[in-house]
Amino acid sequence: MQAEIITIGDELLIGQTIDTNSAWMGKELANRGIQVSRKTAISDTKDAIMNAIKESFNRVDLVLLTGGLGPTKDDITKKTLTEFYGCSYRRDSQVMAHLENIFAKRGRTLLDINSQQADVPEICETLYNEVGTAPGMWFDVNGKVLISMPGVPSEMMHIMENRVFPKLKNRFETPHIIHLTALTIGIPESLLSKQLETFELGLPPHIKLAYLPALNTVKLRLSGTGINEDELQQDMQAQFDGLCSIASKHIFAREDIQPVKFIAQKLIQHKLKVTLAESCTGGYIANQFVQVPSISKVFSGSIISYSNEIKHRELGVDEGLFTTVGAVSSECAKAMCEAALEKFSADIAISTTGIAGPGGATPEKRVGLIFIGIATKQGSMVQKFHLFGTREQFMSRASNCAMQMVKEVLLTEFGIK
Amino acid sequence: MQAEIITIGDELLIGQTIDTNSAWMGKELANRGIQVSRKTAISDTKDAIMNAIKESFNRVDLVLLTGGLGPTKDDITKKTLTEFYGCSYRRDSQVMAHLENIFAKRGRTLLDINSQQADVPEICETLYNEVGTAPGMWFDVNGKVLISMPGVPSEMMHIMENRVFPKLKNRFETPHIIHLTALTIGIPESLLSKQLETFELGLPPHIKLAYLPALNTVKLRLSGTGINEDELQQDMQAQFDGLCSIASKHIFAREDIQPVKFIAQKLIQHKLKVTLAESCTGGYIANQFVQVPSISKVFSGSIISYSNEIKHRELGVDEGLFTTVGAVSSECAKAMCEAALEKFSADIAISTTGIAGPGGATPEKRVGLIFIGIATKQGSMVQKFHLFGTREQFMSRASNCAMQMVKEVLLTEFGIK
Repeated sequence: MQAEIITIGDELLIGQTIDTNSAWMGKELANRGIQVSRKTAISDTKDAIMNAIKESFNRVDLVLLTGGLGPTKDDITKKTLTEFYGCSYRRDSQVMAHLENIFAKRGRTLLDINSQQADVPEICETLYNEVGTAPGMWFDVNGKVLISMPGVPSEMMHIMENRVFPKLKNRFETPHIIHLTALTIGIPESLLSKQLETFELGLPPHIKLAYLPALNTVKLRLSGTGINEDELQQDMQAQFDGLCSIASKHIFAREDIQPVKFIAQKLIQHKLKVTLAESCTGGYIANQFVQVPSISKVFSGSIISYSNEIKHRELGVDEGLFTTVGAVSSECAKAMCEAALEKFSADIAISTTGIAGPGGATPEKRVGLIFIGIATKQGSMVQKFHLFGTREQFMSRASNCAMQMVKEVLLTEFGIK
Repeated sequence: MQAEIITIGDELLIGQTIDTNSAWMGKELANRGIQVSRKTAISDTKDAIMNAIKESFNRVDLVLLTGGLGPTKDDITKKTLTEFYGCSYRRDSQVMAHLENIFAKRGRTLLDINSQQADVPEICETLYNEVGTAPGMWFDVNGKVLISMPGVPSEMMHIMENRVFPKLKNRFETPHIIHLTALTIGIPESLLSKQLETFELGLPPHIKLAYLPALNTVKLRLSGTGINEDELQQDMQAQFDGLCSIASKHIFAREDIQPVKFIAQKLIQHKLKVTLAESCTGGYIANQFVQVPSISKVFSGSIISYSNEIKHRELGVDEGLFTTVGAVSSECAKAMCEAALEKFSADIAISTTGIAGPGGATPEKRVGLIFIGIATKQGSMVQKFHLFGTREQFMSRASNCAMQMVKEVLLTEFGIK
């Protein structure tokens, strides 16, 4: 079962908005046995929308549209769909009641422009949107299904989860698709593929291997398709075990998960308190931890010690060190993580000190140099890395390196796999 | 002048990778008078690639391709292009020398699979890639230009900036396109559009207004097209001034800029030191600041005081307050920002305390409630907000609210516009 996604809006074409919607949709549909075979981003003009829908319907029976459902003049999707299907509008009383309710709650006047959001093409089924003002629409004509949703991510997701997925399940019969992903850190794609060459050649035709490199990680993704779910599950598990055993040295996690989230879950599970003293990563790693719900069980706070003065005043780093080896040094990273462990009464403390760039380099210390320290009650260790990329990429790579160090410490000092 | 972008890779379709490349490309091309009229994401199969190229060439004369140029078996773009143009390979000696150099530097053996990256289709012009191993390719056949580049963002950007843009300027004559964007915070799209209705109806045909809502911001973007650059510049500036004066009350910045970056630049320019005591935003705002180069001139550090214990121990927040009004309170936000101002010797301190969710709510205090405090040497103020969304959306909205408060304080206390 194949589907196409069409995203509508000039902001996507001129790059003012990054399209995260279609990635989420592609993933969720794939998990339900529907393969997105093409995604098309178009301008919000009638012709572009009409043509894109016609073309997609020539290739597939299911098309999902996002965008262009707002109340303003540049939002023309609904009008275009009415024309595409040659029907008129009906006012949906349930949507109208919902709008009146929202505006009353917010103490705002319901303008004509807002009420018009309750008008939907006569022949569509309304996909009610409890978290926003624009409803979604489901058209099922001549065996072809078209689903139109707002472009606001939270509204699209709400409609997909509560309206679209249940309806799709009833409407289409789909083969089983299983993806299994392992995450590696710190090994280049070409070296991995060399190691996995024989394995890859030996894969059965219904199972594919893909390499997904991103910063200093590579995801190894096995995708399998089959009619019999149990059989496919068994085939996939056997192949995945083979893959993981060949690449075992480099595998960080046998799942598709952010490294920080993986570590956060282990820490929460084993009640190990974590803290940080971040210099060059400036709160990046702490904030990655704080994105994980329930982190408060093991995280009580951390410090961003960006200047030497704060490293000295708040963490007691010896000032002499800044003039001898400098703040970007193994000695400083060690002092920082040890002090943070104490200050925040934690079981594991992470420190970072380095040069994120573009400024700050010296002849001896290049942009990208970073020392990462890990302290526990048993002692501390520091590793040196040379990372590259923009400031944000540098921080993200540093975070991955730190998580690999923490994983190692969890194993060696706490016996946690 | 119109162009299309084709992105290749199953990872984009099943949502394992978010496509940031094409957003960047769309923006940079638009700035150079080339309008991306369609973006298509396809699977890495020969048929999908061939069909997509043919279809795009039926509509436009310029097609940009990314992805599928890696060394592994699932990367088939180069092979497909050789077939599309019916030519054979040549080994590019400059690419070969570059590969040998890279591998020698990294102390790795150059495998056959790596050397093959120096083989390019005979009829293309090589677009040298100094930051990676896969070169880009430029095809110019029958008046139609096709550009193929790697999918790794830093490599694509390098090739675009250093090879593609200069060549495009020579190859095509393009009309002038100007975008002017103003950023509003905290006002809904429909209210804005009501205010701007008359203005919008009065726009000349070569200038368009778009509303780009995102979390609690709306960008107002004017786009103009014209042959005479000076005239267009004048027209656009006049319309933009009109727009900004109508919506002046809600405009945060008269440019397309992240709120934190806008504030960071003002702080750096006026040498005002900033710090933070973050609870519910857990380092999010600090890290947004640290993403801005040269922030070290005005940012020496900050604290993430997530637990009550750390709020008390590190910031001296009165413990009695946690049992009377609670940590999520105006009183706590006030104490936090005042203490941070002192602790980090800053001119402006920002504090946050709230409930990011999904847990932590009480009957009196809903998920999304947040108090934001701003302290200066003149005193402090606290505002209460109800924000919504995922944890990350909550933090991003909170950051925007905080920046609007800082902007206000910069004006009233420091006379900075």
